Amino acid sequence: MIQSDVLILGGLSGITAGISCRRHYPDKKVVLVRKEGTILIPCGIPYIYGTVGGPQYNVIPDGLLESNDIQLVKNEAVDVDREKKIVTLADGETISYDKLVFATGSLPAVPPIPGVDKKNVYPIRKDYHYLEDVFEEMKSVRDIVIIGGGFIGVEFADECRKGRDVNITVVEALPHCLQMALDDEFCAEAQEKLSETGVKILVNTKVESIIGDDAVSGVRLSDGNELKADMVILGIGAKPNTSLAEKSGIELGYNKAIRVDAHMQTYTDPNIFACGDCAEKQSFFTGRPINVMLASIATAEARIAGANLYSPVHHHTGAISVFSSVVDGRAFAVAGLTERQAKEYGMNIVIGRAQAPDTHPGGMPNSTMTKVKLMFAKETGVILGGSISGGRSVGEMINVVSACIMHRMTANDIVQFQMGTHPALTSSPIVYPIVNAACKAVLPIRNCQ
Amino acid sequence: MIQSDVLILGGLSGITAGISCRRHYPDKKVVLVRKEGTILIPCGIPYIYGTVGGPQYNVIPDGLLESNDIQLVKNEAVDVDREKKIVTLADGETISYDKLVFATGSLPAVPPIPGVDKKNVYPIRKDYHYLEDVFEEMKSVRDIVIIGGGFIGVEFADECRKGRDVNITVVEALPHCLQMALDDEFCAEAQEKLSETGVKILVNTKVESIIGDDAVSGVRLSDGNELKADMVILGIGAKPNTSLAEKSGIELGYNKAIRVDAHMQTYTDPNIFACGDCAEKQSFFTGRPINVMLASIATAEARIAGANLYSPVHHHTGAISVFSSVVDGRAFAVAGLTERQAKEYGMNIVIGRAQAPDTHPGGMPNSTMTKVKLMFAKETGVILGGSISGGRSVGEMINVVSACIMHRMTANDIVQFQMGTHPALTSSPIVYPIVNAACKAVLPIRNCQ
Repeated sequence: MIQSDVLILGGLSGITAGISCRRHYPDKKVVLVRKEGTILIPCGIPYIYGTVGGPQYNVIPDGLLESNDIQLVKNEAVDVDREKKIVTLADGETISYDKLVFATGSLPAVPPIPGVDKKNVYPIRKDYHYLEDVFEEMKSVRDIVIIGGGFIGVEFADECRKGRDVNITVVEALPHCLQMALDDEFCAEAQEKLSETGVKILVNTKVESIIGDDAVSGVRLSDGNELKADMVILGIGAKPNTSLAEKSGIELGYNKAIRVDAHMQTYTDPNIFACGDCAEKQSFFTGRPINVMLASIATAEARIAGANLYSPVHHHTGAISVFSSVVDGRAFAVAGLTERQAKEYGMNIVIGRAQAPDTHPGGMPNSTMTKVKLMFAKETGVILGGSISGGRSVGEMINVVSACIMHRMTANDIVQFQMGTHPALTSSPIVYPIVNAACKAVLPIRNCQ
Repeated sequence: MIQSDVLILGGLSGITAGISCRRHYPDKKVVLVRKEGTILIPCGIPYIYGTVGGPQYNVIPDGLLESNDIQLVKNEAVDVDREKKIVTLADGETISYDKLVFATGSLPAVPPIPGVDKKNVYPIRKDYHYLEDVFEEMKSVRDIVIIGGGFIGVEFADECRKGRDVNITVVEALPHCLQMALDDEFCAEAQEKLSETGVKILVNTKVESIIGDDAVSGVRLSDGNELKADMVILGIGAKPNTSLAEKSGIELGYNKAIRVDAHMQTYTDPNIFACGDCAEKQSFFTGRPINVMLASIATAEARIAGANLYSPVHHHTGAISVFSSVVDGRAFAVAGLTERQAKEYGMNIVIGRAQAPDTHPGGMPNSTMTKVKLMFAKETGVILGGSISGGRSVGEMINVVSACIMHRMTANDIVQFQMGTHPALTSSPIVYPIVNAACKAVLPIRNCQ
């Protein structure tokens, strides 16, 4: 039997939880158990098939574990004896623990479409060898159908086209691609960018069945048409990987995720914590459970869980949901709520919009027009969300918005925001669009008060 | 006599004050008086001489005034009769006002070096035709000496070398270039980048005199050496342009800047406001008056002043001082205090450092290593400042730090920061350096509590 103080089950957020634990509890013996030999940067997976050029270039180095004195056991945990505080592995080995962390992540959702189990139909699993097989297989295909036009689907479409002579079609059931993530005007912009690359997009369309003999040869659509396909990629979403937790008697919550409190402690067992995709999330705005899976939330939760194992240090304020993506070189990002979500919650909102080039003067090289939309609660002026499209700087601009959200700044606060500006790096201070969008919201907010 | 409700004297921050006023007081007649026919983006001035290619590409369009219904009078204000509330212009025309805003900016400091008035010795004035003359003159020079290695001097050196066969030497009196702005390790990095471009840098060196007949032919240094020079650029700094305010009996404060309160209202006259380089600044951290001139502070103050003219809307919390620069493609930025400044104030501090590539995996194209240094108050954990060097994303990363400073976040808060991440746009969430730098500071802060 291996002895441990802290035993972590899982991948990406497991590493971060381990590092956080090591920092706060330098004397504890920390062991991380995971099935996968090599683990991948999850958000980098679509880029394996284009920009990065193979799974071998998208690996999280295990050096992070070594340098933080975390023992890695490559095996699968199959049983948890909570009374004896012992985890059993697939090969019969056992590991004792004092504190246990579930960081078991998520598994791809596989829709119940007839034919979904045919050869060359690929849900996107975070598995190195599996994704390597997809990479090899893709060398000889001509017609790729991507089912689901969320971020995974859109990023795969944008990457798979690079350096390949293939026909790519994205099939999305909703009226827009990215509709669960972006407001309509940004969906439209992203969809147009993707179309311009030659990717075909079918919206308001469902896949009825996947056809072919042993391997896929096409998909049959809800409108009766058929698409030729020698590869199908499923970008439908993911579900929490919580079967071991459930089997161990740990209470699950919304969407079958592990129920945790603001300390990332399970409701069931004070010695068991969970973080990342397998843990239940509450909205920063409403406190309600939500179904969102982002590496950024996962690592934030992992830092909290690792620090809190022996006494609460950090308090999770809920998921803000900050994400960004790139379509044919143009970045799209959201922090907090979209307008659609706010309206679904019945919130009274005020919107401010502004746009500006991301350099000044706009004639500086590599200048891109940046569009910002900020949303505030009408009665209080508190920021509820922001959406941005533009160039590379969008990746950090959305984090400026996230920081504003985290401290519930008002439009008035953001008007006075002191941003650094530089000709080659940012918009001009006169038109800096996060501030100007807030400026435009100040009066409508005041007029309702 | 021209009638106005709101009369604004000045350039860049005058425009922003006018727009803010228009937004809050849609019915007021707003007039802006300035001497300059065409005004320039101030931070873009060094880029006229390289990347941008001429002053005509660095102009602030007057369309911003027209679209906000602000009347522009191109003339010089020479007298203010505060009792009658009338301003007199150089041509004898008068303008009545109800509220008056000084946004008169700054003038370049000219050091009392013998020979400083010779031909081809140029302080950097924000004057279109003057800078155009410098641009033309630069076409035929061979040896440029830049006196002063602050941001203006360093940016001029980096830009003037582009596309020209010239020898450039920067002469700096302090031990490092950029020493007033950056901590030593970042100064060293920036200086090395600049040296690699072929620019010669002399530190710990003063200019004793500027030599030549009518025109400059060289400079004599404090170490006895002489440098050949057919052009000298002065990048020494600037002083508030407040002679008219002083003549009008408005109280001046530190560094002869116009004394204003948190509403940007002058101490002297409730109908007179000031903003931008001509207005006195208080430190966000200490409340003490400080000598800092940044376009980003100027525009923030202008937004406050314009909104507050008829009743306080915004409250200035003091200057955080956020700025960024680029040396040979590498960005350097600071928000808040540097370590040197904090130590000068006698503060107990904890520093956290982290670095990471600004894409993930690092093998994504255009990946740049980003270095982050955050500084916290030891007793409270409140963030006091951040310094970053890296690629283009630094321009907005420093604004993330500024937002954290604005709401006095603690290291604990920043550990839980939910940043959006994307392979092409940001660091990996595991190593996102703003968060990781905070993580490294948490324990040293706790251990002292």
